[in-house]
Amino acid sequence: MKIDGKEYRSIWLAENGWSVNIFDQRELPWKLKIVELTSAQQVATAIKEMWTRGAPLLAMTGAYGLCMALREDASDGSLDKNYKLLLETRPTAVNLKWALDKVKAAAKPLSGESRIKAAYQCASDMCDEDVEINKAIGQNGLKIIRDLAKKKSGKTINILTHCNAGWLATVDYGTALAPIYLAHDEGIPVHVWVDETRPRNQGALLTAYELAQHGVPHTVIVDNAGGHYMQNGQVDVCIVGTDRVTRNGDVCNKIGTYLKALAAFDNNVPFYVALPYTTFDNSLESGADIPIEERNAEEVTQIGTQKITNSKAANPGFDVTPARLVTAYITEKGVIDSIAEKPKRASD
Amino acid sequence: MKIDGKEYRSIWLAENGWSVNIFDQRELPWKLKIVELTSAQQVATAIKEMWTRGAPLLAMTGAYGLCMALREDASDGSLDKNYKLLLETRPTAVNLKWALDKVKAAAKPLSGESRIKAAYQCASDMCDEDVEINKAIGQNGLKIIRDLAKKKSGKTINILTHCNAGWLATVDYGTALAPIYLAHDEGIPVHVWVDETRPRNQGALLTAYELAQHGVPHTVIVDNAGGHYMQNGQVDVCIVGTDRVTRNGDVCNKIGTYLKALAAFDNNVPFYVALPYTTFDNSLESGADIPIEERNAEEVTQIGTQKITNSKAANPGFDVTPARLVTAYITEKGVIDSIAEKPKRASD
Repeated sequence: MKIDGKEYRSIWLAENGWSVNIFDQRELPWKLKIVELTSAQQVATAIKEMWTRGAPLLAMTGAYGLCMALREDASDGSLDKNYKLLLETRPTAVNLKWALDKVKAAAKPLSGESRIKAAYQCASDMCDEDVEINKAIGQNGLKIIRDLAKKKSGKTINILTHCNAGWLATVDYGTALAPIYLAHDEGIPVHVWVDETRPRNQGALLTAYELAQHGVPHTVIVDNAGGHYMQNGQVDVCIVGTDRVTRNGDVCNKIGTYLKALAAFDNNVPFYVALPYTTFDNSLESGADIPIEERNAEEVTQIGTQKITNSKAANPGFDVTPARLVTAYITEKGVIDSIAEKPKRASD
Repeated sequence: MKIDGKEYRSIWLAENGWSVNIFDQRELPWKLKIVELTSAQQVATAIKEMWTRGAPLLAMTGAYGLCMALREDASDGSLDKNYKLLLETRPTAVNLKWALDKVKAAAKPLSGESRIKAAYQCASDMCDEDVEINKAIGQNGLKIIRDLAKKKSGKTINILTHCNAGWLATVDYGTALAPIYLAHDEGIPVHVWVDETRPRNQGALLTAYELAQHGVPHTVIVDNAGGHYMQNGQVDVCIVGTDRVTRNGDVCNKIGTYLKALAAFDNNVPFYVALPYTTFDNSLESGADIPIEERNAEEVTQIGTQKITNSKAANPGFDVTPARLVTAYITEKGVIDSIAEKPKRASD
């Protein structure tokens, strides 16, 4: 992606060859602050406190965290301890576990310097792979937008998205936003309804920022408004990302996704979920089995520096959209229309 | 209602006998600021800028605004001009038109002092009536909560509400919250999920405040979260207010109500709409005919003093919940189960 005309990825190895740079996403869109992460402990904090976020990106950040831990102490004890430390930072997205498992598997048979080297190689390969995967998701989703464009014969395609599943949630391109960028680039007139995505406003703060940087027309709306626009024919398609898809096709994603899927279904608006195969979790039968992260209530009761209530609040971070509400899954290997097809994870 | 132990209504005539006092609801819950409104122009501003709000309450405020206009100038020209001025402040709620029509009808045949007196008498009667109506809505809704309490044999009844339809939206008691207050008062254990209600946060700021003042247990949640709690059996019933119900039973209410109604339907949670008969608008066939107020985009892009995006935003204030998603309408005359029964307005 380009930010102010300069090429970036959302995570990259520092010049020293062992620490990694990320954007502190809590400062966006107001400040492009690059933070260098230098230890597993700091990576854990960065993930927990959402300096970095998005299922694919936090997985990569976690992977590098494990590499840094091994660089400090390449013992089996260190490997196990830091694997656990990093895994426990965020419970809902499955990609983190997948990435940590990959690094662990690469490192396990080796020791000392070669263990460290193998871990870093694995993390670096996964990052490159993530970029390629997202490009492919974009290409596969692009076909859907092209078809809609044909049907609407040149009229603007209105796309609703929830939270941020763009390049700020991945190493580059994004998942849900990848097809939108490609459509825009080939001249299809697209307009994006951006759910602000309370409580952390990733839509208003991050997705709107990404789209603005890329020049894609968009409008920020409160999370309450999507149903209204769908009722009034102002949404042609919904595309969202996901943190975990279970064997039966249930989709866990940012809280509020389920409500949009219900509205899409009620108004015959196609509802797509864009994801890499690593987000499929065949170890769980259905969405009911997914641990839903309960985040700090202050994210609800306080907006920035402003307190909005003295009352108690609850703050579940995710919800589950039943498979029946999903039109199809846009993956790097193609668009999976039917939940009857049980997709296998790339690593299986 | 009681605020810090003292009895109040949400609107009352000042000691001078002609101006009215309201709470500046923009300052709640942090400050209980009473504002004296002294002219129709000021009333129009207070309604537009939501110093006062809620379909029944803004109707009463508008009615007094017309009285004040006549006190300044009791001519037919003044009556017509100020009727129009006040009617145009908020387009969606039907109660405002109903109340202005009542005052106009009372004033029209008279002139001078007797015209002014009749207008004030009419406004005052409507306020008293509003209190009685809401008490009756509360009693009728209470029966529903009692039945749920029996079924759950003593366990807490979890009620979800959207926006604010309590005493701050009416002269006293409220509509959707009235049954909850009565249930709490007779010892039924109730707990309220309070949707924060972006963009203006009436739930977090006003409903949570009301419930806290009355001692009703409650938890503030983001608007995205209600579906998740319904999926997980943590909502026994939804009760909301409304700004207008059309002939076919469609319900116009604060933006986002439709999404909660969809989730309630999807999870077999009963979804009730509490309203006075004055909110039925038999002049419109369906929700599609209701003018939806488009409010200032800054309500979305700016939270308090904090800007959240430089992007464009849209801000529809209301949406329409189709009649098919409504379990029943709780009115002062009883609970109307079927939309086939075409209720008539009290004034018809």
